[in-house]
Amino acid sequence: MSSPGSGSRRVTLADVAAFAGVSLATASKALNGRGDVRDATRERVRVAAERLGFEFNTLAQGLSAGRSGTVGMLTSDLVGRFSLPILMGAEDAFGAGQLSVFLCDARGDSIREQHHIRALLRRQIDGFIVVGNSTDPRPPLSLDAEVPVVYAYAPSTSDEDISVAVDDVAAGRRAVEHLVQMGRRRIAHIGGDSAFAAARDRAAGVTVGLEEASLPLGAGGRPHYGSWSESWGRTAARVVLELDPDVDSLVCANDQIARGAMEVVQQSGRGVPDDIAVIGFDNWEVLTADSAPPLTSLDLNLEGLGQRAAQLLVAAIEGAPSPGRHTVEPRLVVRESTGLTSHRR
Amino acid sequence: MSSPGSGSRRVTLADVAAFAGVSLATASKALNGRGDVRDATRERVRVAAERLGFEFNTLAQGLSAGRSGTVGMLTSDLVGRFSLPILMGAEDAFGAGQLSVFLCDARGDSIREQHHIRALLRRQIDGFIVVGNSTDPRPPLSLDAEVPVVYAYAPSTSDEDISVAVDDVAAGRRAVEHLVQMGRRRIAHIGGDSAFAAARDRAAGVTVGLEEASLPLGAGGRPHYGSWSESWGRTAARVVLELDPDVDSLVCANDQIARGAMEVVQQSGRGVPDDIAVIGFDNWEVLTADSAPPLTSLDLNLEGLGQRAAQLLVAAIEGAPSPGRHTVEPRLVVRESTGLTSHRR
Repeated sequence: MSSPGSGSRRVTLADVAAFAGVSLATASKALNGRGDVRDATRERVRVAAERLGFEFNTLAQGLSAGRSGTVGMLTSDLVGRFSLPILMGAEDAFGAGQLSVFLCDARGDSIREQHHIRALLRRQIDGFIVVGNSTDPRPPLSLDAEVPVVYAYAPSTSDEDISVAVDDVAAGRRAVEHLVQMGRRRIAHIGGDSAFAAARDRAAGVTVGLEEASLPLGAGGRPHYGSWSESWGRTAARVVLELDPDVDSLVCANDQIARGAMEVVQQSGRGVPDDIAVIGFDNWEVLTADSAPPLTSLDLNLEGLGQRAAQLLVAAIEGAPSPGRHTVEPRLVVRESTGLTSHRR
Repeated sequence: MSSPGSGSRRVTLADVAAFAGVSLATASKALNGRGDVRDATRERVRVAAERLGFEFNTLAQGLSAGRSGTVGMLTSDLVGRFSLPILMGAEDAFGAGQLSVFLCDARGDSIREQHHIRALLRRQIDGFIVVGNSTDPRPPLSLDAEVPVVYAYAPSTSDEDISVAVDDVAAGRRAVEHLVQMGRRRIAHIGGDSAFAAARDRAAGVTVGLEEASLPLGAGGRPHYGSWSESWGRTAARVVLELDPDVDSLVCANDQIARGAMEVVQQSGRGVPDDIAVIGFDNWEVLTADSAPPLTSLDLNLEGLGQRAAQLLVAAIEGAPSPGRHTVEPRLVVRESTGLTSHRR
């Protein structure tokens, strides 16, 4: 049996509680120095935490006295697609139950945004994380108060601000790299709405990946831009199959497009992945995990983005801001749509 | 030069109206986003409000003096599917920019929940809306303070609490009523995971609807329960088509199941809706609006639920609580999957 905590899995409070033979509530109270816990119990929990290498509230404990331990998150993401994972990532970085993140819904409306900012400032929050609804840069908040701000997902247009963005270029490049590794050689790209930076950046990454592999872009040598929808995926896949019947893989700029494209490929009598591999972006699990076949996708690591935003915010609160645009690495999630084994070698 | 409103006197709506050169009523309508105000006027008022630093009367003008105008929302909905629409509905009920809702992520963890409650109480919030991650009843919060709470989506197990729930029975009944109106007579039901109240309630509603139409339930006379996934929709549709090849419609307990079922129906050479109509629940637009064909679905009206929760919470804050379980009416969203014209008359 391996020693406790020796694996790569992160040690949780539940592990500590089990090791110490106490309830989760008791373990939490003991480590927080709160509540009526007997000294002997508290000591047992502390020893358990130490043995297991449990990292409790690293970030929040780093906060100086006098901080409120509360961060405001302003989102303009109406569907919650981006903000909830970012919120969870931030909370994880702060440490379970150590710091509160209050999320407010600004809906991309500057008056509403100002209202929420004032309401949060009146409640002595230590800083803001501002989550955009696209990856396009946004103008900085106008704040009267000297409160640190980190821009997440949509970076600030100002380099003097602290921003954390996804790396769509790296994601596009990674998609191609994966397809090439799987033996694909004739790769086409179905893009999203080219008015969005995300569509252009993903296409740019695809181009870089193909250059590195010394391969041309299939289906006319250009990305097929359109919209972010399933129906665009269907339409574009028909165009691509018509233009280039020998295409062996489709890089689709999001999971909706990939779902639509996969449907049309299958209706044309071709198999996914046997004849054509399909790959999406975002790894929105409701679309990717349970399709037939399940869809390979580039996960843009929004929880990691939330964690990074939290770390940068705490540093800024403590007087050590790191201005500029930081990025998080995307993560390739391989499923059957690109073939689990090598193809056409 | 000091900017207008820089003194200690609080900026009033009258100041904004005067600055913008409009009547008080127009200023109010413009800022609330209500009524017929010309865009140019609305913009002038918004600019005036922003310039003056006008804070739209904390909550709701309905709230007594001494209230903070802030409500806490605790959610355990990790995907944000339910909580974001409910948050938006609540904010709309309070009036644009009238009241701040701070959302905290409790993840169904009681320690985390307690932590957030304490953090919110320290900031003088007026009340809580607690959003569950399923429609199954949940135990009441343990609160030390006397702060009103409204349970939304997951009702409280106690009838002394104020709860707002979706009406899944009404939704199931409405689904059948719609299919019958469209001329369908052989209706099968693919259920979700029967461990969830939502699956049982939707099936109960289907039964009520069929009884009202004096029709039997197709495909073996029982709901086919399974899970909430697309793959269950595919599996169950195969079973249903095998058991009852003459079935003319499928009521699927959520949109994922409906998407999977629709795929198998089409692969079997049958048309949707020509041969078989398909209907889902939740109206999750990423799944319903852009499928081929677009999917009819029962929208459980989560924004309406948020609005109702906000109204009940304000009443409770003002000393007029309405304990018990309140419900919101579902809304049928008809798309092509059930046929826009009458069928098989």
